[in-house]
Order: sequence, then C-alpha cells, then structure tokens
Amino acid sequence: MGLFSKDIKTMDDLFVHTLQDIYYAEKQIHKALPKMIEKATDAKLKQGLEAHRGETEGHIKRVEQVFKQHGVEAKAVNCPAIDGILKEADEITGEIADKEVLDAAIIAAAQAVEHYEITRYGTLTAWARQLGRQDCAALLQANLDEEFAADGKLSKLAEGGVNRKAAA
Amino acid sequence: MGLFSKDIKTMDDLFVHTLQDIYYAEKQIHKALPKMIEKATDAKLKQGLEAHRGETEGHIKRVEQVFKQHGVEAKAVNCPAIDGILKEADEITGEIADKEVLDAAIIAAAQAVEHYEITRYGTLTAWARQLGRQDCAALLQANLDEEFAADGKLSKLAEGGVNRKAAA
Repeated sequence: MGLFSKDIKTMDDLFVHTLQDIYYAEKQIHKALPKMIEKATDAKLKQGLEAHRGETEGHIKRVEQVFKQHGVEAKAVNCPAIDGILKEADEITGEIADKEVLDAAIIAAAQAVEHYEITRYGTLTAWARQLGRQDCAALLQANLDEEFAADGKLSKLAEGGVNRKAAA
Repeated sequence: MGLFSKDIKTMDDLFVHTLQDIYYAEKQIHKALPKMIEKATDAKLKQGLEAHRGETEGHIKRVEQVFKQHGVEAKAVNCPAIDGILKEADEITGEIADKEVLDAAIIAAAQAVEHYEITRYGTLTAWARQLGRQDCAALLQANLDEEFAADGKLSKLAEGGVNRKAAA
C-alpha cells in the first residue's frame, strides 16, 4: 500500500483492498500448511489439516471469482496480520519437542488462522451485501461457512483427545 | 522466545506461554485503542471503543490474576500475531480520507483484534480445564465472553448504519 496516498476513497475501494488482503492471506496459508501437516503427529489432525489445504484451494478460486464478478483484476496485497499469525505459529511449533504438546499447539495455531479468515470473510460478506453484490456475497459466505466449520472441527479434535493426551 | 531451545516441554509450559502471549496482546491493544478512538467519527463507534478500552483494563487484571493463581510471575512475551494485526489496522486507517469509509474500516480492524482474542481465550480456557485449573478457566472464560460480546456489538454497529452510510 502506498502510505499517505489516501488510496482508499470509497467503500468499493475498501472492499477490493480487503479482498486483496484475504487473497494474499489464503495463498500464504496454503504455503504454510504443508509444514504444519508434517509436524502434526495425531492422525486425525494430520488428515484434518490436509483436507483443509484442499478447501483452501477452493477458497482461493472463489476469491478469484469474486474479483472477476466485481470486474477487477485478482491481485494480492501484503497482509501483516496473517504474516504475524503464521510467524507466531512457526515459532511456537519450533519450540516444542513433545509430540502431544506440539499437536495441541498446532491446533491453537490453526485456530488463530481460522479466526483471522472468519473475521475477514464476515466483514467482506457484509460489505458485498451493502454494495448490492449479492453474487459476491454468496461466494464469500461459502468461504466463511467452511472456515467456521474448520474451526469447529479443530475444537472437537482438541477437546476429543489431543488436549487430554498432551496434559497426561 | 529463545528459538531452537525447545523451551516448551509440557502442556503447562504451553499454557503459561500462551498466557504471556495474550498478556502482551492485551497491553498492545490497550495502547492502540486511543488512536482508533480518535480516528472514529460515528458517536456510537467512538463510545463503543472507549467502553472496550475500559473492558481491556479489566481483561489485563484478570490475566494477572490467572498468573497469580497459577503461581507464576506475570510476564509478557512478544506476539507477532497481534503486532501484525495492529500494524495492518494502523496502515489501512491511514489510507482513508472519507470519514464514513474510515469508520467501516475501523470496525473491521477492531473485529480482527477481537477474533484474535477470541481464539486465544478459547484455547486458554480449554487448556486450563484440561490442566484441572477451573479457577483459571473461569477468569479466562469471563474475558472470552466479553470479547464475544464486543465483536457482536461491532457487527451490530456496522450493520445498523455505519456500512450503509459508508456505501451511500
């Protein structure tokens, strides 16, 4: 972003900018997932993260479709928020030798990622509706629903055994 | 954190580390809020952010109480995630001249902050219960409930007029 240039003048500009932000974030998440999958030891966690990597590819395609429907070029802008979240995930999982404690930390890191996506898709869906773009809102809502579901699955994995094993 | 030192050995270590992370995050949020309050123009948004700054002071005190109950010193560790989220909030709100578009961006930025806190308090509450620390869990749950409520209030403000005015 060109600082001090006041590039964002309208809600439409803000919507497109935030779309570029989540586009970058989804791509970074897609890049970061293989390392998390490799580190995870619980079989269900590994499977869950792998499935989510596939979903992430679908999210990227839906965001590209939103760009297209909205008549703007698909472009990513730097997103310090997701960079920070992924940096923290990488640092913390590098600090843990015990496999079960590591699994608990990976779930927490993945949920921080999910919550970032939930907040951005929640905002983007509301803005798309406000701008009269029901077509874009429907695609963004589909991504939002899948991020919510992914977060719920991670909570179930944690509460269904990973935390208990890690605390044992 | 001392990288490569594998400092986190147990679930208890991971719990304390994540508590140090949210302690740092709450303090940074408390520092960042006055600038957001100053930039906001909608009276209800300004009031809501001011009220949340007061709540944040309460959250910091509860986290300090959790440290105390758990028998460890209250300490903050760097949290690249919240640094990234706040950096992005600062950048985007510096890009917007139109007051109503700026209010919409401030709500989105504040909700990204809330979601970070929601994910961390959700994790910490589950871990405290797993570690048999119901006393700590109750305090963390109280913070979690207030973050959820704050996020809900921001959504209502956005949908109740701020987005409509910004898109007009």
